[in-house]
Amino acid sequence: MKRRDVIRCREKAWKMLQKAHIAITAEEKQNMEIADCGFNDIENLGLQIVVYENNQRYCAKELVLFPNQFFPEHSHPRIDEWNEGKQETFRCRWGKANLYVEGEPSRYPKAQIPDEYRRYLTVWKEISLMPGDQYTLLPSTKHWFQAGNEGCIVSEFSSASVDEADVFTDPRVQRIPVIEED
Amino acid sequence: MKRRDVIRCREKAWKMLQKAHIAITAEEKQNMEIADCGFNDIENLGLQIVVYENNQRYCAKELVLFPNQFFPEHSHPRIDEWNEGKQETFRCRWGKANLYVEGEPSRYPKAQIPDEYRRYLTVWKEISLMPGDQYTLLPSTKHWFQAGNEGCIVSEFSSASVDEADVFTDPRVQRIPVIEED
Repeated sequence: MKRRDVIRCREKAWKMLQKAHIAITAEEKQNMEIADCGFNDIENLGLQIVVYENNQRYCAKELVLFPNQFFPEHSHPRIDEWNEGKQETFRCRWGKANLYVEGEPSRYPKAQIPDEYRRYLTVWKEISLMPGDQYTLLPSTKHWFQAGNEGCIVSEFSSASVDEADVFTDPRVQRIPVIEED
Repeated sequence: MKRRDVIRCREKAWKMLQKAHIAITAEEKQNMEIADCGFNDIENLGLQIVVYENNQRYCAKELVLFPNQFFPEHSHPRIDEWNEGKQETFRCRWGKANLYVEGEPSRYPKAQIPDEYRRYLTVWKEISLMPGDQYTLLPSTKHWFQAGNEGCIVSEFSSASVDEADVFTDPRVQRIPVIEED
């Protein structure tokens, strides 16, 4: 993504955080991660991330999704002998999120995903999260999610986050963002 | 504490959460922990706790403090060979919190603590937390905190929480709440 697009997305996510009465510092705004997964199609696919804390034991983030933005299917595999992979709890703070996990596929899932991304989605058990709702995912389980029409803000509480270890179903995904200077 | 006082405190804390636009479920409201530490003096000393998640790896809570309510000095010692004690991050979400930690004592600390509790406070380095500010405490370090005039709401992100292992400076503290039926 180009630097100017990253800055635009940070501004847009920050306005959503303000609307939801969630305070972040100027430094957190400036360091907000815009994860476009290398597709350069951020309005449809991606995620805005404020990392509050990530240490060897636990991690806390605020995830901001634009209206109908979706984040592709992935899992958090075992890292080594001591770390069985990231376990995470998603708690909806504002807006509405649809989370898709392993299990009996939902008959009428609400997700609307462009075909070029949809073909890499293999888990379809829908968990709808409204403000105050949460769901915990065990390590090594596949999942993906999409915001509702107004977007959403989701707190993520987890064990240590090692993003570069994430395994995506779509082989095109580049999880670690690269910013091109304008 | 008597059941009716517990219910009153839950209601009061819930109203503060609403004011701060933080959604919790009816079940979370009903299970809110009112930690009066056995003093039955909740307006001065204690803490209202919503536990979002507590598993073997991480924990997330919302802490609600009434105006000027304080929580006494304690630390989280090593539990066993595998758990070196709880590490925790306090992030202020609403209102103002003053956190006191080990280190150079502040010259003019803002805390106002009744004498009968004050004599058990030994760490006086003040960290003022406004919304968006946070502070991380390593295991086995002493700390205590007090809300500002309007109360405060603080997110706690941490490793696993084992409250019964907490060590308080004041030997009178009973950390695990006992509810007396009316």
